[in-house]
Amino acid sequence: MAAYKTPLADIQFLLNDLLDYSGHYSTLPGAEEVNAETINMILEESAKFSENVIHPLSRPADEEGCHFENGEVTLPKGLKEARELYIENGWAAMVAPTEWGGQGIPNSLGTISSEAIAATNPPFAVMTSLPTGVATTIETHASQEQKETYLPKLIDGCWGATMCLTEPQAGTDLGLLKTTATRQEDGTYKIAGSKCFISFGEHDATENIIHLVLARCPDAPEATAGISLFIVPKLLLNTDGSNGNRNAVSCGSIEHKMGLHASPTCVMNFDDATGFLIGDENNGLEYMFTLMNDARIASGISAIGFASASFQGAVAYAHERLQMRSLSGAKNPEGPADPIIVHPGVRQLLLTQKAFIEGCRAFTHDALKLADISKYATDEKERREAYSRLGYLTPILKGFITEVSNECVNAGLQAYGAHGYVRENGMEQLVRDCRVTTMFEGTTQIQSLDLLGRKTVMNQGKSNKCYIAQVQAFCDTNCDTESLKEFISPLADKLTQWQDLTQKNMTATMTDLDEMGAASVDYLMYSGYVVLAYYWAQMAKVANEKLKSGDGNSAFYQAKLQTARFYYQRLLPRTNALAVTMTSGAANLMDMDADSFVISRL
Amino acid sequence: MAAYKTPLADIQFLLNDLLDYSGHYSTLPGAEEVNAETINMILEESAKFSENVIHPLSRPADEEGCHFENGEVTLPKGLKEARELYIENGWAAMVAPTEWGGQGIPNSLGTISSEAIAATNPPFAVMTSLPTGVATTIETHASQEQKETYLPKLIDGCWGATMCLTEPQAGTDLGLLKTTATRQEDGTYKIAGSKCFISFGEHDATENIIHLVLARCPDAPEATAGISLFIVPKLLLNTDGSNGNRNAVSCGSIEHKMGLHASPTCVMNFDDATGFLIGDENNGLEYMFTLMNDARIASGISAIGFASASFQGAVAYAHERLQMRSLSGAKNPEGPADPIIVHPGVRQLLLTQKAFIEGCRAFTHDALKLADISKYATDEKERREAYSRLGYLTPILKGFITEVSNECVNAGLQAYGAHGYVRENGMEQLVRDCRVTTMFEGTTQIQSLDLLGRKTVMNQGKSNKCYIAQVQAFCDTNCDTESLKEFISPLADKLTQWQDLTQKNMTATMTDLDEMGAASVDYLMYSGYVVLAYYWAQMAKVANEKLKSGDGNSAFYQAKLQTARFYYQRLLPRTNALAVTMTSGAANLMDMDADSFVISRL
Repeated sequence: MAAYKTPLADIQFLLNDLLDYSGHYSTLPGAEEVNAETINMILEESAKFSENVIHPLSRPADEEGCHFENGEVTLPKGLKEARELYIENGWAAMVAPTEWGGQGIPNSLGTISSEAIAATNPPFAVMTSLPTGVATTIETHASQEQKETYLPKLIDGCWGATMCLTEPQAGTDLGLLKTTATRQEDGTYKIAGSKCFISFGEHDATENIIHLVLARCPDAPEATAGISLFIVPKLLLNTDGSNGNRNAVSCGSIEHKMGLHASPTCVMNFDDATGFLIGDENNGLEYMFTLMNDARIASGISAIGFASASFQGAVAYAHERLQMRSLSGAKNPEGPADPIIVHPGVRQLLLTQKAFIEGCRAFTHDALKLADISKYATDEKERREAYSRLGYLTPILKGFITEVSNECVNAGLQAYGAHGYVRENGMEQLVRDCRVTTMFEGTTQIQSLDLLGRKTVMNQGKSNKCYIAQVQAFCDTNCDTESLKEFISPLADKLTQWQDLTQKNMTATMTDLDEMGAASVDYLMYSGYVVLAYYWAQMAKVANEKLKSGDGNSAFYQAKLQTARFYYQRLLPRTNALAVTMTSGAANLMDMDADSFVISRL
Repeated sequence: MAAYKTPLADIQFLLNDLLDYSGHYSTLPGAEEVNAETINMILEESAKFSENVIHPLSRPADEEGCHFENGEVTLPKGLKEARELYIENGWAAMVAPTEWGGQGIPNSLGTISSEAIAATNPPFAVMTSLPTGVATTIETHASQEQKETYLPKLIDGCWGATMCLTEPQAGTDLGLLKTTATRQEDGTYKIAGSKCFISFGEHDATENIIHLVLARCPDAPEATAGISLFIVPKLLLNTDGSNGNRNAVSCGSIEHKMGLHASPTCVMNFDDATGFLIGDENNGLEYMFTLMNDARIASGISAIGFASASFQGAVAYAHERLQMRSLSGAKNPEGPADPIIVHPGVRQLLLTQKAFIEGCRAFTHDALKLADISKYATDEKERREAYSRLGYLTPILKGFITEVSNECVNAGLQAYGAHGYVRENGMEQLVRDCRVTTMFEGTTQIQSLDLLGRKTVMNQGKSNKCYIAQVQAFCDTNCDTESLKEFISPLADKLTQWQDLTQKNMTATMTDLDEMGAASVDYLMYSGYVVLAYYWAQMAKVANEKLKSGDGNSAFYQAKLQTARFYYQRLLPRTNALAVTMTSGAANLMDMDADSFVISRL
């Protein structure tokens, strides 16, 4: 398996040079004490843990997979112990509020530092992020008593946690869910039904597991308006808070999956299990979206992690693998052949990875500042505005980043040639592990409807206008800088085109809603390319300044500038195609009779 | 696992309506008796065998994998027996010459009928195609005595066969291979060295295995000019032709791979094994390319097979899976939700598959006519011309088709949502099995250098001009047909652009060979999109005529026309991006210092 080094240089470049995270934290309520030193310490320690503890477990765990017997799930060797070390080191409690035993580190820094965890051991990242997400949901929406009951042990890492949304007939369409919740005289509910695709629904790493379950009360309104959210612990708690009797929730089976073999994906059966309502009945979906929005951003970071691990493997291999001579003359004349990094075709694969990874990382880290503000800001207007801006960017972030990350892990495998197809080299595992990212937490198709439908058409394009104004302001400020012309000028052109395309799509939607669905995926990808162009222009600007001032590692800033150029010349032009295809109309998709897709006999 | 039906309607449309295969065979020396009835019979029987015999084995064989113990390889359950039935049914001998016990069916028809085999059981397709390829190489280049010794039992399916090219240090760069061949007094050679990535190098399905091995004689010229080709049987033959003693060739290990689990990929060790020279010393690579050219076309057909299986699975699922309502009003009001085939985003995935699959199938079936002519035509000029035209198209075919097939199998998985990630549904196996196709038989990067370097720059663009003239003639003939304008007009534009881009790339290459490598992958993909546009225009023309005449299944022809429209409006515009990126110059790839790709510390 290829070695992995946490890309600390790039992360520090973003946090310090580009996004001024120290400044951000200094004005963020509750985070004022998180200075550059703390940030670096957390990043360095997370890097060490990822590289030394969980990375070596990843390949063997993929081969071993999870074991299921008599309703019990056993994780592959080493994961439980690594988790214990993770807790000992204080990672579990890092982003939780201090009042509940956490360390009060902002969520952004937790997510940023989790990239290395996802890159080195994706199932471990899933396992450890779940309790954090569930704790946040409880902290935001549950009663004081519930908080007191569940938060301390979720935060100190004692308990595992899940989110139970999907049912066999209800995936994207949660309105179809059938699990019922029947009110009992004591105020609890009996939960009955079956959930599927429940990550870490059952396992042997923690004694208790706290399930957050969506279910429907008997007299609830139809569809999504009638869904409530419940806490269903695996073990009911005794009055002193200790683990008590087994609740009527059990694991029926685990899925055999393409990847993420060390992450048990469970069918969970609730047979009149005791559940505790969070908040009010019928508000469950809204509560769950607290967790879902964070999860969508985190899934971007995970995907970047997979892509980054693949990139590093591919670059190392391209240095060491000797095949053919450079067409422009031998570069390694004393060797039997040149390292394949001399070949333009190989460089094209590697730079595609580098440009996407670093661009997406910048995008995500900036979005995480908005997430912080939308959570912690005391000024209500500022908080709301950040929430709305983040809401607009989230489907682009989740959809675009997971799509291009899949391209990246495949490019890394391709750089290895047939050796990439061999499991021992680890490149194919990244392809398998990454593949689910464009489907979970809402498919790319769903993200695109969220972006063009809810977040654009339904708010009259306001969010899009607001974002374009922000990028336009950047262009206006920098359009006279000669060294940035190669970026600012095409970026400004794309902004104009984006505006125009948005208007066209909004108009087309007015006559036929299918026009929206027919444009949306290409529109989402187009938007992603423009957003990344914005970040590459910003990074090029900083790199230029650093190179002029002679400050810092010039090779790093030179590479930034070159990667920006690659992005603008080799990847951004894909928008030329998307601009055409997204406006080609719904007819080329909708005209075909459903029965004519496959006609096997003439 | 999704059901699979061989796409006979589409194949028959191509062979009868579009490409007049009966006419082709009626003038092809040796194939005159292959009429429409024979063609249909072979396709129908191959369909039955694929659907009923080998398809049910595919998923279990993927799960079971191959077993390696003490140098012996055991195939997963059922493959050996299926192979015996395949031989009994006469498939093994189908395309072999009648003089050696074959049925004299043209290679084209064998390849066309193999799509269903690849679609339903890829490892089975690998296993059964190898002896055919090896027999062709022996028949073309070996001595009469060698033919008599090896052909009958390769052709009747008694023996297995391999091609042993790759070594750990010599993949793409065969000039680096080290396996030695030492001449013995009796005219045989002692072969010593280690080969890797040898498909079916060892297995329990046949008693003997005939290896074709590339090796270097001690006094041979350096690099590729000094490579010879040898027959190395696993069991040496007794004077009566029966299997005798074990030769000094053995399997050292098998690879653990991403997919194709039922196809053993072997390290083969030759410890002074007895080998028999084919033809002359140092001509080995040329002989091997007989097989390699066929293999590249066959890999296109296999990739189409994977994509087609994925497409059928996805369409079936899109009909049966109920989620959400159509945005333009409920289409299944009596059900709990609409089938997802009503959603434009899902249709976009399915139509991307359909347009690529059917376009690539037409391209390949037409190329197979050239392959027939280049092999069987008695007129030397006609033969040579077909060989040259096919040689030009082969890298486009192999490179483009395997790339877009990978897109297709991923689109099929995406249409399933998270259910596609579950192994039982079979969609992810197609992704894993297909993934190797862009690497084996020469990576896409290598195909692109072959296309732009050897086949374009080095022949002054003659082959490209010749092909463009052919497509231009089609445009000229049809440009006045009103109903075809939506296809002919953009096709003619693309031809002009292709010509221009070819010239630009040739000019750029003159100053710097790296410009060629920097343009080549995008140029190959661009070329593929234009070639497919040519076939979609041809298919639209036939479909239009059929619809006008009221002849045949109008739903089929209507769908053809709609898919052509989808291709032109949704896929061909990708050339807009490729035209820009391929002319963006080598600097954006080559400027970066090799050590700057990864800088982990600032």
